[in-house]
Amino acid sequence: MTDELKKTARSKVKRVARRAHYDRDTINAVLDATVLCHVAYVIDGEPYCTPTLHWREGDHVYWHGSSKSRFLKSVVGKRACLTVSHLDGLVIARSAFHHSVNYRSAMLYGEVELVSDADKAEKLKNLIDHIYPGRWDSLRPMNGQEVKATTVLRMAIDEGAAKVRTGGPVDDEEDYALPIWAGVVPLRVEIGAPEPDPRNLDGIEIPEHIRNFRLGR
Amino acid sequence: MTDELKKTARSKVKRVARRAHYDRDTINAVLDATVLCHVAYVIDGEPYCTPTLHWREGDHVYWHGSSKSRFLKSVVGKRACLTVSHLDGLVIARSAFHHSVNYRSAMLYGEVELVSDADKAEKLKNLIDHIYPGRWDSLRPMNGQEVKATTVLRMAIDEGAAKVRTGGPVDDEEDYALPIWAGVVPLRVEIGAPEPDPRNLDGIEIPEHIRNFRLGR
Repeated sequence: MTDELKKTARSKVKRVARRAHYDRDTINAVLDATVLCHVAYVIDGEPYCTPTLHWREGDHVYWHGSSKSRFLKSVVGKRACLTVSHLDGLVIARSAFHHSVNYRSAMLYGEVELVSDADKAEKLKNLIDHIYPGRWDSLRPMNGQEVKATTVLRMAIDEGAAKVRTGGPVDDEEDYALPIWAGVVPLRVEIGAPEPDPRNLDGIEIPEHIRNFRLGR
Repeated sequence: MTDELKKTARSKVKRVARRAHYDRDTINAVLDATVLCHVAYVIDGEPYCTPTLHWREGDHVYWHGSSKSRFLKSVVGKRACLTVSHLDGLVIARSAFHHSVNYRSAMLYGEVELVSDADKAEKLKNLIDHIYPGRWDSLRPMNGQEVKATTVLRMAIDEGAAKVRTGGPVDDEEDYALPIWAGVVPLRVEIGAPEPDPRNLDGIEIPEHIRNFRLGR
């Protein structure tokens, strides 16, 4: 595994090539900073765009779903595109044309692999502990039926690119003389105060991984 | 156009069918509440999942991009899947299996249509005014070259579904006796204080559509 992703024909179709990054650190940072991705599959020639949770372990990105889903099973061994996007701000310019957004995104391409039954339980532990570090050991243990009811898929991080835009508007030089407000409206995901389940037992303390919850790593 | 979307085979592959909604009000509310969607296309049999801005006008959802993009042009007349997702919270249960997320999503399927040159300028006005109500009239007018450099695509809102999950964890009955904290960590998009461009003219006031900016409608 190299530190850079393959620059395939797919990479070349990016709308703004100069925003593309192929280094693994940038791509990993985009993947790791949230838990929501969108996966595009093709089934019978039709595209599907499914939002799902993802997590990364080294050189692979993982997602999961119900084993009952023929949909998930039907994509094993096929190509998919997994995309993670962060909308960081609205970029407000002096002309409509130069309005933009600040964002970080990663688009990965690869073949979908089915995680074996032998490895599934460990991967599901890693999912929980990725979102809530250390939570797994505090839970009622997973039983065999639950593992069986879950499908875990993965894709090698090998092909694709990240794209990042930051900063303010870039207007046509003559437009800077116009009396038009320009700037950036920043956006970020706010984590609200944890809401305890009404059926929590008396005296149960909020665990550290919830009290100091962070989205992503 | 009916008030309900077609329930095709595609709709049936939803992982949790009971969370599906086919009424237009629910779907429109999911679409309208943000500006970021993900569109899945198939090109030469390969899936692509592209994050982009979207807006809705009546019975169609629109997106745009650079006219230079052969990528965008190559999907005209082909099927796509446009998905909008809101991650509203993390649902924390007493067993790994019942952890979940609160979300609103809409997945739409349809054929991609190219908006004609005659209609493009009006659509781009609608994009700006969708994100920043009333801003278009305050801008340096769009010129013909800029309109030409932009491709606008759309899809009829006709086939697909919304899915919504709200509320706390639903645990196995016997697990409620366990001394494990459960609950919800809410997430929402926070809109930061507008950051004026350093090159704004002296005395330019921040317009109302920025001062009271809301993401989506």
